[in-house]
Amino acid sequence: MKLSEMGEDRFLAELRERIPDPSSHVTLGIGDDAAGLAIPHGESALVSTDVLVEGVHFTRQTLPPRFIGRKAVAVNASDIAAMGGRPVGILVALSVNVETEEDEVLELIDGVVTRCSELTIDFVGGNLSASPGPMMVSVSILGTSLEGNMLTRAGARSGDAIYVSGKLGAAAEGLDLLQEGMAVSAAGALLVPSGLRDGPVPLAEICLRAHMDPEPRIDLGQFLCKNGAASSCIDTSDGLVRDLIRLCRESRVGGRIEETALPIHPAVLAWERLRRRPPLEQALSGGEDYELLFTSSDEKILETWRDSENTPLTRIGTVTEASEGVRLVLREGTERELTTGGWDHFQTWKSPR
Amino acid sequence: MKLSEMGEDRFLAELRERIPDPSSHVTLGIGDDAAGLAIPHGESALVSTDVLVEGVHFTRQTLPPRFIGRKAVAVNASDIAAMGGRPVGILVALSVNVETEEDEVLELIDGVVTRCSELTIDFVGGNLSASPGPMMVSVSILGTSLEGNMLTRAGARSGDAIYVSGKLGAAAEGLDLLQEGMAVSAAGALLVPSGLRDGPVPLAEICLRAHMDPEPRIDLGQFLCKNGAASSCIDTSDGLVRDLIRLCRESRVGGRIEETALPIHPAVLAWERLRRRPPLEQALSGGEDYELLFTSSDEKILETWRDSENTPLTRIGTVTEASEGVRLVLREGTERELTTGGWDHFQTWKSPR
Repeated sequence: MKLSEMGEDRFLAELRERIPDPSSHVTLGIGDDAAGLAIPHGESALVSTDVLVEGVHFTRQTLPPRFIGRKAVAVNASDIAAMGGRPVGILVALSVNVETEEDEVLELIDGVVTRCSELTIDFVGGNLSASPGPMMVSVSILGTSLEGNMLTRAGARSGDAIYVSGKLGAAAEGLDLLQEGMAVSAAGALLVPSGLRDGPVPLAEICLRAHMDPEPRIDLGQFLCKNGAASSCIDTSDGLVRDLIRLCRESRVGGRIEETALPIHPAVLAWERLRRRPPLEQALSGGEDYELLFTSSDEKILETWRDSENTPLTRIGTVTEASEGVRLVLREGTERELTTGGWDHFQTWKSPR
Repeated sequence: MKLSEMGEDRFLAELRERIPDPSSHVTLGIGDDAAGLAIPHGESALVSTDVLVEGVHFTRQTLPPRFIGRKAVAVNASDIAAMGGRPVGILVALSVNVETEEDEVLELIDGVVTRCSELTIDFVGGNLSASPGPMMVSVSILGTSLEGNMLTRAGARSGDAIYVSGKLGAAAEGLDLLQEGMAVSAAGALLVPSGLRDGPVPLAEICLRAHMDPEPRIDLGQFLCKNGAASSCIDTSDGLVRDLIRLCRESRVGGRIEETALPIHPAVLAWERLRRRPPLEQALSGGEDYELLFTSSDEKILETWRDSENTPLTRIGTVTEASEGVRLVLREGTERELTTGGWDHFQTWKSPR
């Protein structure tokens, strides 16, 4: 059934049935003009919003509806993670073409519901409207954080070490593979077009997963915040370079990172070797890794994370004075000034990724 | 300059310059992964989201950019008003075509900033993305409300009186006039096409203003909530009938409203007389009045509002048992069952309003 035949009220009733009972944080759940959430005494409410636009942030070919829903939750949760906060509640505003099949939208909603439940976030409200254009999923997230104890972009000091969590470039590699025709079937099987069968196929699925279903670093953000281990933090949504420049700008510092220190994902190394491209670009500008990029003056505390958790932390460089700019030391020892070569929604949108 | 020439980071820098310093509620303002807002001890955070889509909720012809921004703030604040809450902070996610002129977007942002300032709401964050389709303005609002003291849709009891604030139908009439070519110039002058010059022109501007620049009933919502004067409440965004049906459904009651009691706006009466249409439809299904529709078992308390404020309250009917449905008593004494004849985003989108 198409949404135009169904009507908004009936659709919203269907939707509410899919949303589980709220947690004790929720003082008023879905179905009213606003939702109510309890914020513990002394904590701040953290709010953030992020929009996924069809044709810009995803296409139907590269991201099935369930993953659109899952990813919309994860990228918003990542913003709260980058503040050291705990995500609590989510609101989803969907704009869809009236010709869209109801099933497709319900699948997207199922993705939102499941991902919320995995991350113990309450789905507290939403909004549905018709659109003459592409699908848009606008998510707002509410979290909590200890007051005066937020990780911001603004606290880096010259001499601090620069760290990044996880491995870099897999999400961008995944998008390339999807655009070249690789896919995951509804049943979960990897579909590999003939042109890609000679590649390191077992490593491809990791890349697809990284693009389609990112993992927000919520535990790490809270660890860094609680222990005062990070002086500043940002999540790498638009690529390492672009987000490092943003962090440095807010902190009024410079930064120097080392090519040889970058934790490029092994799957990126393998696939880029096949493509005869240097893997550095995917790692620097690929974007959508949703790792935490942070600075620290206390590496001792970081050891306790490194030893006990499975999200690796890698020291990739050092904070410098603002006058030195943001620089990359290449393998051969030369330096290159880094500019916002990451993903710019406006300047590069003509080749949507 | 077009946005595509400008790039996202430079645009965001321009934008931040326009946003005034945050109030004391704001623990972390614009420019980070999330914003931080203090919620007083014992109060709940209220969150809501609403999206305005070009071609569905507005067109460039009927709503200049400054008013798109103003309206996006007001309709979200109205959701908090309907809960009896105090709006505190706002996040704006804009999706715009890269061919859009920078000035147009900055004008929209100025509208947001000005309206926020008028309503003492902090503009705490935003997000900008390119869109291959129509413009979309997605606003999320955060408010506060005394815990256990929210106005919800669910508390109406059989026997309660049904009230609505303000006058009905002016926003819908305003949209009709705009679609017929009436306009407000940048300098604020009313532009009247020849076909409409015989109408009651002085009353037209009120209607245009009602559509373009609605007034959320924040003070009234707080009055109703603090004094326990309302048993349930909703704002009339999608038309009186549709929102009354929603309120009755959530409260598991029925309702009976009287045609002769409806406070139809005098401007609607005048213009609809000219059009030889009964004015009832604009009042019942017009939508976008953003008045408060509420129920009360304590009319004594309401007298104290009526006497001291300039937003009139009108008793339009009575809450009944659920089995009686939602009904309208017509002028001649007959009754008509009301169904969701209000604005349905999916079933009626082909004639966007």
